[in-house]
Amino acid sequence: MTHVDGLARCGVLETPHGVVHTPAFMPVGTAGTVKGILHRDLHELGAEIMLANTYHLMLRPGDGRIARAGGLHRFMGWPAPILTDSGGYQVYSLRTRRTIDEDGVDFRSHLDGSRQRLTPERATEIQARLGSDIAMSFDECTPYPVTRDEARRSMELTARWARRSRKRFLALRDSPDPAMVTNPGQLQFGIVQGSTFADLRQESAQKIRDVGFEAYAIGGLSVGETTDELYETAAVTASWLPKDRPRYLMGVGTPANLVEMVARGVDMFDCVLPTRNGRNGQLFTRTGTINVKGARYAEDDRPPDPGCRCYTCRHFSRAYLRHLFVAREMTAATLNSLHNLHFYLDTMKRIGEAIVLGTFETFRQAFQKALSRR
Amino acid sequence: MTHVDGLARCGVLETPHGVVHTPAFMPVGTAGTVKGILHRDLHELGAEIMLANTYHLMLRPGDGRIARAGGLHRFMGWPAPILTDSGGYQVYSLRTRRTIDEDGVDFRSHLDGSRQRLTPERATEIQARLGSDIAMSFDECTPYPVTRDEARRSMELTARWARRSRKRFLALRDSPDPAMVTNPGQLQFGIVQGSTFADLRQESAQKIRDVGFEAYAIGGLSVGETTDELYETAAVTASWLPKDRPRYLMGVGTPANLVEMVARGVDMFDCVLPTRNGRNGQLFTRTGTINVKGARYAEDDRPPDPGCRCYTCRHFSRAYLRHLFVAREMTAATLNSLHNLHFYLDTMKRIGEAIVLGTFETFRQAFQKALSRR
Repeated sequence: MTHVDGLARCGVLETPHGVVHTPAFMPVGTAGTVKGILHRDLHELGAEIMLANTYHLMLRPGDGRIARAGGLHRFMGWPAPILTDSGGYQVYSLRTRRTIDEDGVDFRSHLDGSRQRLTPERATEIQARLGSDIAMSFDECTPYPVTRDEARRSMELTARWARRSRKRFLALRDSPDPAMVTNPGQLQFGIVQGSTFADLRQESAQKIRDVGFEAYAIGGLSVGETTDELYETAAVTASWLPKDRPRYLMGVGTPANLVEMVARGVDMFDCVLPTRNGRNGQLFTRTGTINVKGARYAEDDRPPDPGCRCYTCRHFSRAYLRHLFVAREMTAATLNSLHNLHFYLDTMKRIGEAIVLGTFETFRQAFQKALSRR
Repeated sequence: MTHVDGLARCGVLETPHGVVHTPAFMPVGTAGTVKGILHRDLHELGAEIMLANTYHLMLRPGDGRIARAGGLHRFMGWPAPILTDSGGYQVYSLRTRRTIDEDGVDFRSHLDGSRQRLTPERATEIQARLGSDIAMSFDECTPYPVTRDEARRSMELTARWARRSRKRFLALRDSPDPAMVTNPGQLQFGIVQGSTFADLRQESAQKIRDVGFEAYAIGGLSVGETTDELYETAAVTASWLPKDRPRYLMGVGTPANLVEMVARGVDMFDCVLPTRNGRNGQLFTRTGTINVKGARYAEDDRPPDPGCRCYTCRHFSRAYLRHLFVAREMTAATLNSLHNLHFYLDTMKRIGEAIVLGTFETFRQAFQKALSRR
């Protein structure tokens, strides 16, 4: 870490395709593209790293095809860092379409119903073929709510899977077969589970640290728990993770969440909110959200977020964005998503600057106060 | 005109929002946005003028609302020239939903079925409120095929409507009411009809010239006639139009069409092909079209059009574009449309350069020969 302010930290993560400055927000490019956004706009917005989903890519176009194209960076035309998840969360979302056993997960593709299988070894191999800069260990995303016994069982399964993921990862690293390993410098992050039980989180953190990864993630949150549970669980988990490695909170969250999580020692985030909500007309602003669908904006010639410097806010009115949305124009989704990604990435930048200046607590209070103004 | 090479011409059209260099291709921004393409990308591609559809905008968001926003340029955030059509062609496309009489057209909105009416006066007023730089006179787009008698009847109706359109236009110009006229420097183009009958085209050109517009358009083509009929009709019509004014062929066409039409004295074009076909996976290249849907491209790591300098071709492979198309990602439409618009606008630029150099005929032959290579 380069700067620390309370529990909030700034750091630099080195990857084979460049550095990532933390705290970092990773736009989600599920199928190898952020929905509605061109790569060059992501670069312009200051995105240093993109997340892509192993589950989606293994099914379509297939990890073999991507490996033959020279790996995910070349296939996508994205030269900067990429993090791939392990597929665990997507498989968890399938619910009725999957069965879990000690060895791994059987599931049916959401695309064609075909039978598929993921194990810690296979999830690791697929990510090796994709050649992402950061691979995630294969975990079971514990559902919420869950009994303590079930949370323990699930957490222990994730720990065993973490060992197997790491073992396979190290084996591939030690004898790199170009047909299997696209990016020899790939890093692998372990994932802590344990639901909202602080002691299970502590135990999980210890087990996953014992396996030994380049860095660690907090999984199993943003699955229905309350905001207080999210904050407390992430905070306690972060406290048990190494101080000198980035901590990645998976799938979180709103702008307010990001600021609170940095305040509790988290460094990396990914979330579909800026793009998904943008497609639904919702814009994040410093004073809360607005939805441009609203009839009240039909003749509102103000920018979505006065004072925002993004392309959308510099050039377009709420009335125009509403018109594009109502007319079902693709550019509605693109302009809304551009603004939202700008807001997220700019928020991370402002957080980072405040940490460097040692004024993070002041920033945090001002940020949260402004959000509640609307 | 600044340069002439055979019948092909280069010129500069001055409008209140800037100059347009001809020959010019106008991307179609039906509802106030080119589908899937941001304005800044259009500027980067070298588009100097956009077309917008009066029919769509009068229904949604409404010309009154756009006028209150300060006109179409301000509403859309597009500071460059805009041409609006008169609504005649869209009403023609409605077929079963409209009835035509001497005074105008009754039709039902495709959006909500509401009863609407367009007359030459009303189409002119709506365009005055929109404040486009170039308004079109209200015409009847003669269907194809049609009997000679029917073509004459329709052509004569269009001539009477042209007189009424111009009369209303001049009245608005002479006593500009800010509530009615958003852009006092607006130009108005007349439209020649006459189906594929050369003598009717000549007669129509004479009638429309007698009305007196800033420039003239060739309407009623690209409605089902053969390519030979298109070329011959446009050529004969162009020959009857003033030499010192741009000639605009409405709704045409393929890249090959554009080159052949410039060779016959046409200066301006609009067409949905680059964007509509882009959304369907079809890419225009110097050696013909390809459709990235094709399974044959699944592992084709070549750019869509080797040698093309557009953003899409410089960064992405056919395999990636196919993947985005198959995955129904919006960026598929955007990247394909970007390439196609680049191809169209670049073709116009190359045509213009050849005319200036006096090598247009050589360019034309090489262009058409390359197209047939695939």
